[in-house]
Amino acid sequence: MQGTPKTTAPATYTPTDRTVPTRAADRAGYDRELVHAILDEAYVCHLGFVRDGAPVVLPTLYGRVGDRLYVHGSTGSRPLRMTGTAEDGLPVCLTVTHVDALVLARSAFHHSINYRSVVVHGVAHDVTDPDEKRLALDALVDHVVPGRAEDSRPANRKELAATAVIRLDLDEVSAKLRTGGANDEPEDLALPHWAGVVPLRKGYDDPVADPLLRPATPLPGYLAAL
Amino acid sequence: MQGTPKTTAPATYTPTDRTVPTRAADRAGYDRELVHAILDEAYVCHLGFVRDGAPVVLPTLYGRVGDRLYVHGSTGSRPLRMTGTAEDGLPVCLTVTHVDALVLARSAFHHSINYRSVVVHGVAHDVTDPDEKRLALDALVDHVVPGRAEDSRPANRKELAATAVIRLDLDEVSAKLRTGGANDEPEDLALPHWAGVVPLRKGYDDPVADPLLRPATPLPGYLAAL
Repeated sequence: MQGTPKTTAPATYTPTDRTVPTRAADRAGYDRELVHAILDEAYVCHLGFVRDGAPVVLPTLYGRVGDRLYVHGSTGSRPLRMTGTAEDGLPVCLTVTHVDALVLARSAFHHSINYRSVVVHGVAHDVTDPDEKRLALDALVDHVVPGRAEDSRPANRKELAATAVIRLDLDEVSAKLRTGGANDEPEDLALPHWAGVVPLRKGYDDPVADPLLRPATPLPGYLAAL
Repeated sequence: MQGTPKTTAPATYTPTDRTVPTRAADRAGYDRELVHAILDEAYVCHLGFVRDGAPVVLPTLYGRVGDRLYVHGSTGSRPLRMTGTAEDGLPVCLTVTHVDALVLARSAFHHSINYRSVVVHGVAHDVTDPDEKRLALDALVDHVVPGRAEDSRPANRKELAATAVIRLDLDEVSAKLRTGGANDEPEDLALPHWAGVVPLRKGYDDPVADPLLRPATPLPGYLAAL
């Protein structure tokens, strides 16, 4: 159609055995826009990998460029070192979760959390191309504070060499979410317990300038907009 | 000493190969009180396990009773089903992360996040004893909203049967945290970029009562106290 942006990416990710939950399948989604929206609202993920046969889960920052996620770290940190030395990449699971509200039902059983999460399964690969590495690092900074990458000193050669970046393609991925109120059993509605939803407060408090900040440095607009 | 509460638990967890980071070891801690404080301030963890040789990381609620963590879920959900059928339990890694502030340095390289995290390595076991199961479920509810367990209808026999609970001992565990401001290179201090810390806003918005709530049901004190 005229006016429709061209895209080669299908509107949904293809479900797989790993991304179809064994229960509450009605809470799962594969819509690309939904997945990207959940990923873009957060910047800390939990990255899982297998080390000596046992699972390891570490919190880390990530950035997104199209259908690629990037994670960075010291060249000495375990998952990055393991990816760098693995010939075929490192199998990982990258999970992002927003908690939106507490759901208090009259019964303990129906207590719940309103949340939105994305789970990405795949193989992480070491990024060695300097241009892709710079793109990824900018994406990482801008993912946390949009607009910040161009308002900071870019990494120099030494810093780039000390930083490892890994790439994970968005391919086998699903979103899962719960919204709405308490779903009590009809016979519990007469119970005296309070029921309802307690939304989490989101956002930021006022920025605190560095004590060594040059006098009269204004607060950037992208921070005021957070 | 007289007046000192008796305890058999040492004040720190013993570091192991898995809980000593390969870098930034100065950010790691093994103090039991610190670990418990970080665990008690959150209620959503990211639970990692290995399925068909690949890592899986899922967000889930947890509760703590002393040096034991409990995770619950439908008897049909994967990690719980896998734990229930594994003779020797399921190797897991349970990670909890608080993001406290964004740290904006003048250089892209020194951007960071102030955070507190706990990583627990261990083997999860199915809880089959009905008393321990009830204790765990109360702990799970009270972990999210302290005081709520006794102000809700406890699980009945059918609900208990539909709920699986797994236990993970706090034994191989570490905390990791970053605090403070931007750590720029001395030669970058003259750069014009704003630097400082942006604290995350924490807390809850006003509770929203269920539309079917019995008229004149007061808001419980434990919710007002959140």
